[in-house]
Amino acid sequence: MRASGPESTELIKRVCIIGCGSIGSLYAAHLAKVTEVWAFVRRPEHAEALSRDGLRVTGTHQFHAKLHAAHDPADLPEFDLGIVSSKAAQTAEAVRPVAHLFKKGAILSAQNGLGGEEIIAELAETLVIRGTTFMSGTRHSDTHVEYELDTATWMGPFEPTNTPFTVVQEAAEFICSSGLKAVALQDARPAQWSKLIFNSSVNAVSALTELPHSFHFAVETGFSDLGYLLHALIEEGKQVAAGLGIQLHEDPWEMNKIGAQTDHPPSMLYDIRHRLKTEVDFLGGAIAREAQRAGVPAPLHTALYRLIKGKEASWTYDGKRHAAANKQA
Amino acid sequence: MRASGPESTELIKRVCIIGCGSIGSLYAAHLAKVTEVWAFVRRPEHAEALSRDGLRVTGTHQFHAKLHAAHDPADLPEFDLGIVSSKAAQTAEAVRPVAHLFKKGAILSAQNGLGGEEIIAELAETLVIRGTTFMSGTRHSDTHVEYELDTATWMGPFEPTNTPFTVVQEAAEFICSSGLKAVALQDARPAQWSKLIFNSSVNAVSALTELPHSFHFAVETGFSDLGYLLHALIEEGKQVAAGLGIQLHEDPWEMNKIGAQTDHPPSMLYDIRHRLKTEVDFLGGAIAREAQRAGVPAPLHTALYRLIKGKEASWTYDGKRHAAANKQA
Repeated sequence: MRASGPESTELIKRVCIIGCGSIGSLYAAHLAKVTEVWAFVRRPEHAEALSRDGLRVTGTHQFHAKLHAAHDPADLPEFDLGIVSSKAAQTAEAVRPVAHLFKKGAILSAQNGLGGEEIIAELAETLVIRGTTFMSGTRHSDTHVEYELDTATWMGPFEPTNTPFTVVQEAAEFICSSGLKAVALQDARPAQWSKLIFNSSVNAVSALTELPHSFHFAVETGFSDLGYLLHALIEEGKQVAAGLGIQLHEDPWEMNKIGAQTDHPPSMLYDIRHRLKTEVDFLGGAIAREAQRAGVPAPLHTALYRLIKGKEASWTYDGKRHAAANKQA
Repeated sequence: MRASGPESTELIKRVCIIGCGSIGSLYAAHLAKVTEVWAFVRRPEHAEALSRDGLRVTGTHQFHAKLHAAHDPADLPEFDLGIVSSKAAQTAEAVRPVAHLFKKGAILSAQNGLGGEEIIAELAETLVIRGTTFMSGTRHSDTHVEYELDTATWMGPFEPTNTPFTVVQEAAEFICSSGLKAVALQDARPAQWSKLIFNSSVNAVSALTELPHSFHFAVETGFSDLGYLLHALIEEGKQVAAGLGIQLHEDPWEMNKIGAQTDHPPSMLYDIRHRLKTEVDFLGGAIAREAQRAGVPAPLHTALYRLIKGKEASWTYDGKRHAAANKQA
């Protein structure tokens, strides 16, 4: 189902990358090699830097790309394809100002977790593509991204917009033509849920312990070992997927074992350290809600979801004796 | 079973308070009014300050007491009663140097959680009293403690040392004679487990969210509300107690509802903020282990226990890319 070649770029002549973090920057730079790319970003200085300096890619691929960028939606033309790579929690805010520019095209959600597609479909009258990317990179500056794992974006029709599979295939072929990896699937949910379960479990444990994705996540020796908790979270997630009739594409426990060798800091750890609203509503919160819908218990994902929401609440809560911590309880 | 009066102090002529945090300071100051009290503390300057200035109590009770204090066990005489009020995690370290000084007396454990009595009994060849205190106070300095809730210490025989009930009664009457509240019980486990379940649940959620014991802990309206998690933790704890044949003395959920109006920072929140080893092994960890022993599932207490152990591990873990947090996962 993977394809590349010049013919695939003929249908998609202008692309908008919505949100240029590490993943958005990787899409923008690669696609700019084969078509006209615009980056829609929140900060004016970010747009200015991209317009002036382009994007430098280091790591697995090494090149420099020139592209267009804007922070004002009035500066943007119409597009054949949009790729939403903002934080899941910022989807509505990121997509709303440009939602009208994709009427003749499609929008791919390349975000973490579950629920981004629903938000995009509600805002934009266009075809939506369900996407899950396994690429990873580090954003060193507004104009420099390091490409780490050159793994695929898995894509499939978003069911409620009846996106034709040919549209998904075109988009996947187009992405492949830029040197990235993409796979078109008749049903992308097994891939999305594999990553959702992996990501929810690892991000939640990392956010609450403030450990990166370290060896601790896979150790199952002593009673207090975190590997047991990861295993239990992953098993619970699998039960929820099964309850929804979704058979997983990959085993999240195997993904965890590999990740636990990297010391990679998951995005939610970054958010917690910087007191930024996390994506937990689209990760563990999504599993907890889907579990309710399916009538399958998910006590662990639900517990960790509530703890992270409590953590977010703590940043602005100023209790009457909040400061007086030198107490005995 | 509560008693007071001069006759009760006749049997207990010399007391050692092991560990002078807020609870230890409250015992030391009150008991110094009716008998000879020694405080055994870790820091030389703490001992010096107590010897020189005594202890000032403000709040619910207001008085000043003079007492003896030592950081060197060689300076200590023999005792009729010991009260261990160190952190549960420091029990062995605190008791070991003075364990030989109680052969003719008894030692009361007035610590958080479960397991302190076992450690004391292993170190000291003496009678051990199972204790749970509901007093609360704030330690303002080495020589000033504010007394807040003047609630009782519940005491009963520690079963493995076959402590006679009369010994428990004597100790309770003695504590009452000092103006504190104490209750002698034939079986102190229902009281200890009530507080254990309450304390484990509230401390773990506070440690992980960094919220004090705030209103959030009792709210059960929206799906993400923490009250649901507290309720589930407390129910799970009750099932473990029932599995061990222990009927609770008080309902921990009612205790939580009252506490959630105080914004009190639980001791584990203090530990987390100051990166000090927590008491989780004696709280949620104890429930998780007892659940295993009883063959009752306790997935939530076990999960939160593992998260807190992971959090402790994060303070000293220096992964290969720990610092590079600006990543996408």
